Amino acid sequence: MATKVNVKTTRNAASYDISIGRGSLKNAGEWAKSVMPGSSGRAAIISNRKVFGLYGNAVKKSLENAGFEPHVQLIGDGERFKNLRTLEDTLRFLSGSKFTRTDSIVALGGGVVGDLAGFAASVYLRGIDLLQVPTTLLSMIDSSVGGKTGVNSSFGKNLIGAFYQPRGVLIDTNTLLTLPEREVTAGFCEAVKQGAISDRSLLDKTAKILGQLEGRRLHERLGEDSFSENFARFLAAQISFKARIVAGDERESVAKTDARSRKILNFGHTFGHALEKVTNYRYFRHGEAVGHGIRFAAALSKNLELIGQNEVELLNDVVRRAGSLPSLGSIDPSEIFATFKYDKKMINDSLQWILLEGIGKPVIFSHAKIRQAVLAASFKEITRS
Amino acid sequence: MATKVNVKTTRNAASYDISIGRGSLKNAGEWAKSVMPGSSGRAAIISNRKVFGLYGNAVKKSLENAGFEPHVQLIGDGERFKNLRTLEDTLRFLSGSKFTRTDSIVALGGGVVGDLAGFAASVYLRGIDLLQVPTTLLSMIDSSVGGKTGVNSSFGKNLIGAFYQPRGVLIDTNTLLTLPEREVTAGFCEAVKQGAISDRSLLDKTAKILGQLEGRRLHERLGEDSFSENFARFLAAQISFKARIVAGDERESVAKTDARSRKILNFGHTFGHALEKVTNYRYFRHGEAVGHGIRFAAALSKNLELIGQNEVELLNDVVRRAGSLPSLGSIDPSEIFATFKYDKKMINDSLQWILLEGIGKPVIFSHAKIRQAVLAASFKEITRS
Repeated sequence: MATKVNVKTTRNAASYDISIGRGSLKNAGEWAKSVMPGSSGRAAIISNRKVFGLYGNAVKKSLENAGFEPHVQLIGDGERFKNLRTLEDTLRFLSGSKFTRTDSIVALGGGVVGDLAGFAASVYLRGIDLLQVPTTLLSMIDSSVGGKTGVNSSFGKNLIGAFYQPRGVLIDTNTLLTLPEREVTAGFCEAVKQGAISDRSLLDKTAKILGQLEGRRLHERLGEDSFSENFARFLAAQISFKARIVAGDERESVAKTDARSRKILNFGHTFGHALEKVTNYRYFRHGEAVGHGIRFAAALSKNLELIGQNEVELLNDVVRRAGSLPSLGSIDPSEIFATFKYDKKMINDSLQWILLEGIGKPVIFSHAKIRQAVLAASFKEITRS
Repeated sequence: MATKVNVKTTRNAASYDISIGRGSLKNAGEWAKSVMPGSSGRAAIISNRKVFGLYGNAVKKSLENAGFEPHVQLIGDGERFKNLRTLEDTLRFLSGSKFTRTDSIVALGGGVVGDLAGFAASVYLRGIDLLQVPTTLLSMIDSSVGGKTGVNSSFGKNLIGAFYQPRGVLIDTNTLLTLPEREVTAGFCEAVKQGAISDRSLLDKTAKILGQLEGRRLHERLGEDSFSENFARFLAAQISFKARIVAGDERESVAKTDARSRKILNFGHTFGHALEKVTNYRYFRHGEAVGHGIRFAAALSKNLELIGQNEVELLNDVVRRAGSLPSLGSIDPSEIFATFKYDKKMINDSLQWILLEGIGKPVIFSHAKIRQAVLAASFKEITRS
């Protein structure tokens, strides 16, 4: 005799808005009220010392004026603080501040703050409201959209985490005025990545905004109204693309392998992650490593006869406009190739490359099918050019 | 100028089956294959030494025969091992065993194993497949159904966790043959709780199965076919009730406050949690504390004129049949009442009691509306009777 009971889990479809503007941080409180109508009060601003020093008081004051009770928790600046220890400290802070299920977290900062604060929001009392307020170009177009949260650990990067969507994302482009140049380049590299896998139009928009910089720094141009409006449209186009992919494949389903799988966002990342890993995450910014990763994936796609030399040159050209990348000169390719033997993105024990059959035509390509000599040739090409 | 992008998150509705049978552990492998058709191989059996000693090899062998590659991770036995440290050990074990997104976790044990293993499954690589194989009465009817997972921490019990649904739940009633008597009583107390808030029919079924024990131990009766079939029907009725509540309110929405809110499952738990807390989780089994909690909630409901004395007596009688509970003799009521000032179930800073307006008629009642004298009188009543 066996009896069966079926359990239905009705997870409601949800949606949230990403608001992009200039100087919008000073209205953070009203915005928070509008996207979390059910929230009763306490709001934990999670940030780091540097970002909070620049923008924290504006956000705090605005939250207070809107009737929230802000609490502030500062975490260390840098990937090495995105760990279980900081998570536990943050949860202890929330508990010590008597946060309940109707309270919320405001993540004010870049990817480290967003990933850590988002993961904390997802596990505290099994989930409280989260608002993302990204202050770097990379987190604006990438990490704050799509609900990936998590921490690093002694056994790997981002191996621990959750898919957890925010109630809303508030982007104030004025926060980019203080963003260090390398971070700007890193962000633009992720933008190029999204352009490469999206379609020619998004890649063109990205190349165009880079062209409009005319060799000057982003913060110099953002003060000008017309550039600033173009820039906001570029951000919106980038975010819309990512949002579309995420909507179709929120949890990065293993079974989904078409050109609209969330996996395609990993273009440039297999090589990029390897670069970060063999340099102990100390030499490249994540986006910089992705910049090299795009160039490697382009060369590899060409060497596998998926695309032609002209597409490789187009991609290399846009990456070059994104800014200068740290040199690959000291990198030993055999160390890079060794990391491909285990990667958290492995499916059925094989690493899956995201390559291109053309701009906007990503394909998932099994590592097992790629000869070592092709990898080596591709590496040589990107160190030469 | 402000731009808005809307992000849709399409979380698919999901469902899973709970299979109840006698001796079904020996078919665990085939069952695992049927509920996880996409799984490729590694299966981590997470258990404790005692349970694994009794049932581990049968499960392991069955998984092997079905083509899985079982890995075994044993955790400490008891609530005190349900913590972040054990979680990290478990995640390190998964990583060290090179688990990928197509591998799975099999939780073999009671509530501690299920909560810990379930939380590990939810955060490892942001979620891998989970199978629950509960081996205690309480975890069969309660904790393995509904997707609540989590760990305790120095700042509170179950404050850290996730809602994470398994792919399936496999119940082998033969595992109850070795369940210690206090655990049987604890499980039946949760069954009485579900009967009290469900409807007269579930409460009657629960009273009836307790009556059919005829003063003998559960393991003595489970050997008899006719009792065993009645018992499986009782389990199915209990689980169906919980599954219905969970389906309507998977994430225990703060806004949902009607008689079918997931919150009603907390009947008997506010007092029960307080009892556990003031005795440092060492004196009462969770289910035993809930047994006392049912009696307290019944007395409180009567003293607030929501139900009459006859309903209190009916509930007390069924709790009594569930088994003997550790005495309340040494408990100081003022310590209990002090814990009501902060509870993780607080909403808008007020604790919410689940009380009864009748059998199967739970109501959410604000703590702020209850006078201290009424609490004290209710406590006196349950220590007297």
